[in-house]
Amino acid sequence: MAKPKKTPRPKAETPKGFRDYFGAEVTQRTEMLRDIAGVYHRYGFEALESSAVETVEALGKFLPDVDRPNEGVFAWQESEDDGAGDWMALRYDLTAPLARVYAQHRNDLPTPYRRYAMGPVWRNEKPGPGRYRQFYQCDADTVGSASMAADAEICAMLSDTLETVGIPRGDYVVRVNNRKVLNGVLETMGLADEGQRDAVLRTIDKFDKVGEDGVRELLGKGRLDASGAFIDGVGLSDDQAGPVLAFLTSRGADAATTVANLRAAVGASQIGVQGIDELEQIGDLLAAGGYGPDRIVIDPSVVRGLGYYTGPVYEAELTFEIFDEKGRKRQFGSVSGGGRYDDLVKRFTGQEVPATGVSIGVDRLLAALREKGRIRTAERGPVVVTVMDRDRMADYQAMVAELRNAGIRAEVYLGNPKNFGNQLKYADKRNSPVAVIEGGDERANGVVQIKDLILGAQIAANATLEEWKERPSQYEVARADLVAKVREILAEQAG
Amino acid sequence: MAKPKKTPRPKAETPKGFRDYFGAEVTQRTEMLRDIAGVYHRYGFEALESSAVETVEALGKFLPDVDRPNEGVFAWQESEDDGAGDWMALRYDLTAPLARVYAQHRNDLPTPYRRYAMGPVWRNEKPGPGRYRQFYQCDADTVGSASMAADAEICAMLSDTLETVGIPRGDYVVRVNNRKVLNGVLETMGLADEGQRDAVLRTIDKFDKVGEDGVRELLGKGRLDASGAFIDGVGLSDDQAGPVLAFLTSRGADAATTVANLRAAVGASQIGVQGIDELEQIGDLLAAGGYGPDRIVIDPSVVRGLGYYTGPVYEAELTFEIFDEKGRKRQFGSVSGGGRYDDLVKRFTGQEVPATGVSIGVDRLLAALREKGRIRTAERGPVVVTVMDRDRMADYQAMVAELRNAGIRAEVYLGNPKNFGNQLKYADKRNSPVAVIEGGDERANGVVQIKDLILGAQIAANATLEEWKERPSQYEVARADLVAKVREILAEQAG
Repeated sequence: MAKPKKTPRPKAETPKGFRDYFGAEVTQRTEMLRDIAGVYHRYGFEALESSAVETVEALGKFLPDVDRPNEGVFAWQESEDDGAGDWMALRYDLTAPLARVYAQHRNDLPTPYRRYAMGPVWRNEKPGPGRYRQFYQCDADTVGSASMAADAEICAMLSDTLETVGIPRGDYVVRVNNRKVLNGVLETMGLADEGQRDAVLRTIDKFDKVGEDGVRELLGKGRLDASGAFIDGVGLSDDQAGPVLAFLTSRGADAATTVANLRAAVGASQIGVQGIDELEQIGDLLAAGGYGPDRIVIDPSVVRGLGYYTGPVYEAELTFEIFDEKGRKRQFGSVSGGGRYDDLVKRFTGQEVPATGVSIGVDRLLAALREKGRIRTAERGPVVVTVMDRDRMADYQAMVAELRNAGIRAEVYLGNPKNFGNQLKYADKRNSPVAVIEGGDERANGVVQIKDLILGAQIAANATLEEWKERPSQYEVARADLVAKVREILAEQAG
Repeated sequence: MAKPKKTPRPKAETPKGFRDYFGAEVTQRTEMLRDIAGVYHRYGFEALESSAVETVEALGKFLPDVDRPNEGVFAWQESEDDGAGDWMALRYDLTAPLARVYAQHRNDLPTPYRRYAMGPVWRNEKPGPGRYRQFYQCDADTVGSASMAADAEICAMLSDTLETVGIPRGDYVVRVNNRKVLNGVLETMGLADEGQRDAVLRTIDKFDKVGEDGVRELLGKGRLDASGAFIDGVGLSDDQAGPVLAFLTSRGADAATTVANLRAAVGASQIGVQGIDELEQIGDLLAAGGYGPDRIVIDPSVVRGLGYYTGPVYEAELTFEIFDEKGRKRQFGSVSGGGRYDDLVKRFTGQEVPATGVSIGVDRLLAALREKGRIRTAERGPVVVTVMDRDRMADYQAMVAELRNAGIRAEVYLGNPKNFGNQLKYADKRNSPVAVIEGGDERANGVVQIKDLILGAQIAANATLEEWKERPSQYEVARADLVAKVREILAEQAG
């Protein structure tokens, strides 16, 4: 028979910009999602899992202007026979699918509709260090309510969520702002020229980076940036720039002071006054629920997302410091953001539907908890029952069955048992806490050897210390006491 | 200003062959996956979450033979600049990605590598009723062990898993067979012609449907099927067909009888004897672990998957009866299958790596539990605090905060509060157990009204019965007793 032609071997590689998650990385995220879902559920939100695939038409935003609508999304065209050549794409967030689902099922869904969703989203972007093309989002939105109580509720829920997953009070703050206040400020300034308005908005977006003085310069004549380049200013007079700076720096010692400062900044602007009234309402509702300024504050310096949202915006920031990759201290920063947007469903139905919601960056939150040592990076492995005599595999299986029935994570060594050293190396690689050994002698005497691998490693690392030497890390116990002894060692290790 | 041109509204539709999952559908699956992961973890398996996207090259199986490799998978071509024009695809199962991951990371992974994976997979197939293009798989595989203990362990784990998710012993059976035994049977028959061999294999695949007599006819001269059409037979003599029928019907009252029957069927075939020895080993190991024939049996009539796998195959079947869509009784059938396959990693590395694993159909298992009434199809909604006076929203928020802090799922009504009837309709749509009402009078008297909505609905449905009329479904309690009374009603409803 002729040998089949050899085809070159495929490369075993994760596609560029994607990654695999192993062991504790997966289980810790699963646990965090479960905890977050628990809070969302307690607040009356319902789970929704929409399909990962949407028509490009329903996703919107990325409509094809060329042959291939793959800017920003992963998209493909259905073959003519089963999809009439429709373009399909992977969802790029969880909000666009919510809009589609709500428009499609609005007659069956309650109004208001509180829903949460968690799962991967995909972005067809140039991958960079730490930037992946598939990542998790974890959203909660209330569709169909114009009430500020909906926004206040989301802020309270965000605060509860952070504390539930392990960020203690004092290590985070939820900041609230309102797009309408900014609109009021712009109205007060009386900028007739739209180009100038846009330039002011872009400048406000830089407040995080350049601060009050930087914004003043950029609104006026311009500014030398750190690299020595001169950035042209918007060309406003100091008087004209006043309301913007008053807005950005209006946060006072308490909510009342902040609100008073804001009222001064927006003057007689109706939309501005409305925005401030909304912020006051949110503040009152949160205070009534017991959410004080140690958790949620009105902060006009929150500018991220102001362009996208139509009313209140909110952001959760972790306030503790970490060391960045260059060893410099910096605040951990934002882990969640959201706000009110009112054109969610309109593109489908023509009807305006008010909505407000939040998205939590689960992977960033996990990174924060690991950074603070609040979750272990390595998971404890299973108890390993070693194989001394391959013909007695049934005996070893009976041991692991006993251990598992007692709720103890356990496995029998399934590799080639010839070299016993390999079995202990395997246990080490698995991060196993305990190894069980039963050779012919033990069998004859009705006993097993139980090795405390954690203590054993500590003794090995500190071999010169007398105190270690005296502590045994291996025990011989009656076969009948296997489960009890293993449980005892595990409890000691955990304590 | 000129009005922007109107573009036609996009359709709000789930893409063809996809669906959305709401509320309990999502949470029940999440809970089931958590329970299954718990068992897998206890057996020493490690979580793995690979990317949903793979290169078509790594996925294999569906290599492009035309311009567009979208047969069976959803695939697209990367743009030249960021992926050198590689073809990418959504994974169609969790085994192909495991092969890629193991080949890529084999130097860092323990050997043997026990891993579990759960998540959606995608198939580019013609959608049909109840057949979706995105569905969940839930796999566990052991890579790098040739030991039958690995197969026995997977069978035991499958049995434990089914009981853990709520299928009691007696309502399921795990059946084990071995491809090598069939190979031995074919060898014994001495079929020289490959076409005839294939025809025999195809006939064996029909055993489930046509039974022993049907297979005998199809191996011989042929058979009239139910529609009256005559199906040509393979053309074997009764003597020649004997071993196949002996193989298929060799299951005896106990494992020893089955094994003896199988030995007769394979005669002197070396591969056949090896297959039977493997089955015996698996049986011994399972018996040692306490897994008797009430849970796991050796059953040569398991033919599904015999073509794909290289050694042991296993299948979990639910044995209780359900009514199908036509009202006929039938067995629920298979919810899981797996087996040993040894060419997993070879395409990447050239090295043969033995592997064995199982896949659980989570959605079918959920359907089975719903069918048996073991999980509720509708979830209990939140307690709804109604809004009698929109200016006192802060008071209502304080009530829900109290309820939530006591661990009770609760929300305030966020729609337009004008029409109180709409608020109760909303509570009904949410499947709420309790509504809380506090109008001006209640406020003045320091009390709240608490409506038991479940009892209320029962009374409404049985309005003529005196006994119902006498039971109150609405209580007035002191505001301070809100949480205690709600908790009491919820406990009564649950009991």
